[in-house]
Amino acid sequence: MKAGNLKVGIINVTGYAGCELVRILRHHPEVEIASVTGRSAAGQPLGQVFPHLDNMEMDITADLCDELDLVFSALPHKASAEACIPLLEQGVKVVDISADFRLKQADVYSQWYGVDHPDPTYLEEAVYGLTELNRDAVADARLVANPGCYPSSAILALAPAIRHGLISGDIIVDSKSGVSGAGRTLSMTTHFSEVNENVMAYSVNGHRHLPEISQELDTMSDSPVNLTFLTHLIPMTRGILSSCYAPLNPDVAQDPDASERIRQLYLDFYADDAFVQVTNAPPQTKQTLGNNHCLVYPVVDSRTNRLIVISCLDNLVKGAAGQAVQNMNLMCGFPEEMSLEALAVYP
Amino acid sequence: MKAGNLKVGIINVTGYAGCELVRILRHHPEVEIASVTGRSAAGQPLGQVFPHLDNMEMDITADLCDELDLVFSALPHKASAEACIPLLEQGVKVVDISADFRLKQADVYSQWYGVDHPDPTYLEEAVYGLTELNRDAVADARLVANPGCYPSSAILALAPAIRHGLISGDIIVDSKSGVSGAGRTLSMTTHFSEVNENVMAYSVNGHRHLPEISQELDTMSDSPVNLTFLTHLIPMTRGILSSCYAPLNPDVAQDPDASERIRQLYLDFYADDAFVQVTNAPPQTKQTLGNNHCLVYPVVDSRTNRLIVISCLDNLVKGAAGQAVQNMNLMCGFPEEMSLEALAVYP
Amino acid sequence: MKAGNLKVGIINVTGYAGCELVRILRHHPEVEIASVTGRSAAGQPLGQVFPHLDNMEMDITADLCDELDLVFSALPHKASAEACIPLLEQGVKVVDISADFRLKQADVYSQWYGVDHPDPTYLEEAVYGLTELNRDAVADARLVANPGCYPSSAILALAPAIRHGLISGDIIVDSKSGVSGAGRTLSMTTHFSEVNENVMAYSVNGHRHLPEISQELDTMSDSPVNLTFLTHLIPMTRGILSSCYAPLNPDVAQDPDASERIRQLYLDFYADDAFVQVTNAPPQTKQTLGNNHCLVYPVVDSRTNRLIVISCLDNLVKGAAGQAVQNMNLMCGFPEEMSLEALAVYP
Amino acid sequence: MKAGNLKVGIINVTGYAGCELVRILRHHPEVEIASVTGRSAAGQPLGQVFPHLDNMEMDITADLCDELDLVFSALPHKASAEACIPLLEQGVKVVDISADFRLKQADVYSQWYGVDHPDPTYLEEAVYGLTELNRDAVADARLVANPGCYPSSAILALAPAIRHGLISGDIIVDSKSGVSGAGRTLSMTTHFSEVNENVMAYSVNGHRHLPEISQELDTMSDSPVNLTFLTHLIPMTRGILSSCYAPLNPDVAQDPDASERIRQLYLDFYADDAFVQVTNAPPQTKQTLGNNHCLVYPVVDSRTNRLIVISCLDNLVKGAAGQAVQNMNLMCGFPEEMSLEALAVYP
Repeated sequence: MKAGNLKVGIINVTGYAGCELVRILRHHPEVEIASVTGRSAAGQPLGQVFPHLDNMEMDITADLCDELDLVFSALPHKASAEACIPLLEQGVKVVDISADFRLKQADVYSQWYGVDHPDPTYLEEAVYGLTELNRDAVADARLVANPGCYPSSAILALAPAIRHGLISGDIIVDSKSGVSGAGRTLSMTTHFSEVNENVMAYSVNGHRHLPEISQELDTMSDSPVNLTFLTHLIPMTRGILSSCYAPLNPDVAQDPDASERIRQLYLDFYADDAFVQVTNAPPQTKQTLGNNHCLVYPVVDSRTNRLIVISCLDNLVKGAAGQAVQNMNLMCGFPEEMSLEALAVYP
Repeated sequence: MKAGNLKVGIINVTGYAGCELVRILRHHPEVEIASVTGRSAAGQPLGQVFPHLDNMEMDITADLCDELDLVFSALPHKASAEACIPLLEQGVKVVDISADFRLKQADVYSQWYGVDHPDPTYLEEAVYGLTELNRDAVADARLVANPGCYPSSAILALAPAIRHGLISGDIIVDSKSGVSGAGRTLSMTTHFSEVNENVMAYSVNGHRHLPEISQELDTMSDSPVNLTFLTHLIPMTRGILSSCYAPLNPDVAQDPDASERIRQLYLDFYADDAFVQVTNAPPQTKQTLGNNHCLVYPVVDSRTNRLIVISCLDNLVKGAAGQAVQNMNLMCGFPEEMSLEALAVYP
Repeated sequence: MKAGNLKVGIINVTGYAGCELVRILRHHPEVEIASVTGRSAAGQPLGQVFPHLDNMEMDITADLCDELDLVFSALPHKASAEACIPLLEQGVKVVDISADFRLKQADVYSQWYGVDHPDPTYLEEAVYGLTELNRDAVADARLVANPGCYPSSAILALAPAIRHGLISGDIIVDSKSGVSGAGRTLSMTTHFSEVNENVMAYSVNGHRHLPEISQELDTMSDSPVNLTFLTHLIPMTRGILSSCYAPLNPDVAQDPDASERIRQLYLDFYADDAFVQVTNAPPQTKQTLGNNHCLVYPVVDSRTNRLIVISCLDNLVKGAAGQAVQNMNLMCGFPEEMSLEALAVYP
Repeated sequence: MKAGNLKVGIINVTGYAGCELVRILRHHPEVEIASVTGRSAAGQPLGQVFPHLDNMEMDITADLCDELDLVFSALPHKASAEACIPLLEQGVKVVDISADFRLKQADVYSQWYGVDHPDPTYLEEAVYGLTELNRDAVADARLVANPGCYPSSAILALAPAIRHGLISGDIIVDSKSGVSGAGRTLSMTTHFSEVNENVMAYSVNGHRHLPEISQELDTMSDSPVNLTFLTHLIPMTRGILSSCYAPLNPDVAQDPDASERIRQLYLDFYADDAFVQVTNAPPQTKQTLGNNHCLVYPVVDSRTNRLIVISCLDNLVKGAAGQAVQNMNLMCGFPEEMSLEALAVYP
């Protein structure tokens, strides 16, 4: 293993987000991956469980080693909070990829996740780690709640329009996701023969990422957001594309140059963000495969005076592990783009 | 070739809709496929161009033979009208799979298709062949305009809600289609390496199926429909899934049992329609692969008082060739389901 | 349910072969599907477990009903024999889709399947149900061992060459299969994100279909067959393509017209077989999707004097359920093609 | 653009190999991409043609700029030689990704490519750039013929066995390739709806990579190689997997520990090669997606005394652009792995 200055641990490296963290951190010039854990695979060499990491000489262990500077947790909800809180109390910085510290209100957490939060006192401290919108807070944080993959795409798509008061709060987000978002755990809905050559909506009665999107959009909006969010599974491995719809506010709709004006506002909004690109054509998930970019395309539907914003990203990178490394970079004073420079793998 | 009573011709058999017609009509007990045409492939045996039809001894010709009773045209727009009109004048019944006779207003046709209509006098006569909604008119028609694949899914999803005044006209239809909808003509957007492991929105400034959906929904609605319609290409061959969103009218929204009431209205609406099923779970395109069914699932988003309707079908069957045969059956007095009984090929 | 003369049962309808049997038998004019069983799904309506069969009013039960004429068993090996033998003793005809009655020697069965055969006395009686090669015996049988999916493609590819003494026994069969061949049971190797955009060889130390292929080829050959058989998993749902390689015998190799001569022998060999087509171009699995055909293409590699035969089929139809219905038709005196006429679903 | 010491040009950047070169060279610390050409796209910004390269400010031009140190040509055969020869005469180093300098004999070139070679005198000088087997010659070369994608997988799989005299020359290579190997040019065989859910053999009468494989294996072998090479197209974008079969020589076959002995010979053979890994389980193309590795797995089929070697790689990286950069690194005195360190993108 290479030696860097920052000793990091990864809890639950055996999921897709976990092993994606290893891929990205592998050549980070300031990082040493000092410890990776996994329950079922404890004791096995990392390169045996994940042959694409074959040349790393490192075992998966049941528990983290001592003296880590920062830990990424890729555990399921509740278990993640239970693992992270002792680390925080030892002074270790934490980037939590689970949902455990994203929602500010413990009762909303309970309602959507069906369990009580292990320690709601951390909900206020935790910084919602959509870096572009919370850069300063992330830099100062010791606990970052890494956003969900869907919320990353939806919030980045809508933030400029809401912050600038372009749209009403009657928002519909229709998202399409590849299957890796469902993780490595086996289920009939991720069984190849069931998913291939198929598309379906799921979680029709309310996906758990809905309150997260609502919460973040509400903080930017003058009026409460009235959000419908519907998720679809499509036959590909990586990628999320979200199509967002909202009525333009009347003053914007009356502007004959609304489309160009909005586009310029978006360009300005993300002018200093290396990982968000406002595109000049509808973006495709393939243009983000394996990299940390979110592509955003706003367009006015002039027949109906609605704003449409299409956004896409790689759910395992900008939607999970890449975002987490971006947050780590800020938390530790490294350049924000460090180790995240790779271009998308096309085609 | 088998001998049936009805002699049919297929114009442009070399596209996907054309050869799908052959697949479906092959064992129709009342039909003889008497003539199939194709420009580039004229002179070649049908079974050489399409090996899956290998055991049919039939050549593709440049022109139709004489003495046909009914002709399906699968030509592109404009060329299709030009081919169909002389047939109509000879007394041949026509099911046109192109867009040429779907729109009632010649100026709307010109606006969306960029050409003048060859003979607008036929626009009034033509029956819009979404059989479930126009059964009697189809039965009496000599010219049926077969609906577009997207409109079939959207209109069947929304018709019960609009007819019963459940929703306002502020409608968003977000559709996801397999690639065969783009036909057999080569293009970069249907090149395997570009489409696979990818999703994108396209025709963002207005898909040609938009005016068709608006026209048909308007005829059912008390107030004009304000429709946003966005299409997406996903990496599968067959299938369309449409997710439709609209605000519930206030009286419906106040009903605590709105969801169940709406579901029952949908069940009643399609009670006599063999090919439309109101499902009790979100439907999947795989459940329609190769057959003539449209699956419809209405559900209330009680957080926002919106109706969501999800529908799906096989774009080449219920969205094209199967629908055309269903129309032919009615036009010729055969049982509506004849030769369309096959179950979906799952998985 | 429709009423036919023959009452059939399906054991373990909840696997892919089981529900494919229902799809094919659904409109068989002589068959009534009288009973379908499944362990985990017992008590559920068939159309709830398999929505593509939605309009069938039938429950899955734990046990078969009485008074069946013929039963298909789609159970795993050993369990299948244990279920079939009592039926045979009651005078019910059986088509067993498992491997339990395919191998003639009990010790070979034990060696490859790791269990003792429940009753080896049936091994001699059982007819290997590759209909084209055993038509008369199948017609007289009360117990048919339905062939494995891989063996069906390999044996039909090689039978004419071996029967005519064209090749030596030094045979290599390299097969590529879609994922549905691995069934509906969940595993990491059938998890979408692991299989998609991937190809791998598996069972490299010997696939269980190897002794079955060897046994059948040996019965046709003057000299023992020396077979290497390697299986590969590719990212599609249905279909097997086998590429078979063998040295031409010297007298054949010296014939300057060997390729055309061999092709004619193949055409003659399968002249009376509706479901085996000798193609004039390399076949594609897509040309068999959903139907009961096996496509066979022999060609001489004149640089090396080897025969190459490429064959393909749909592993769930000609490789499982369709083959089983073909056998049932013969066993019961129905036309061999009954209910198997459907064309492939292309594209 | 970043500034490096070596100014490189890429001819025909608009194909998949061309834009993959940009992806890999983008962050190469010693390279400046100084010029990229393309015929149809000349005058367009590179980032407009390939949005995944969006943040590069660079136009595609019709011709190369002056003062380049090294040029990669990704033109089709013949055109590539015609473009490369003048560059060589100006003292520019060349890595040619086309087939134009791979074959040593001009008559074999003419036979397989159907054209006369523009200047056969370069055939002797050109170094066949399978770096692991020709490291010293590549380091000294001014003209490197980058290997074909299939030959890279086949030759690396078989080289240790042939060099060590383990096998006879009766070799069969059965290769499965993703569709990107067919390039960006449109054709019916790369049209999504034709390729998806399909597998087929192609170039059955002899793929153009056959003479290249034979030539290279012959140089290592005591006796001439008698090679059958068959290629298959499978529904994925990137990746080649080759399954190679050959009889073990008698003395090897008699060794009861042949399998382990061969495995050790392979490990030793590639001990110093960072990009070739001898795996301890059958490799999967997904384990190489986007990186420059070739995975090799030798195993003895003890029933038949044949050696099976399975190898895989990413056809656009180790099979094209990555291999080309590896060669450039050697030709220019850079570390062989520079800019090729990225891990595979899994899943």
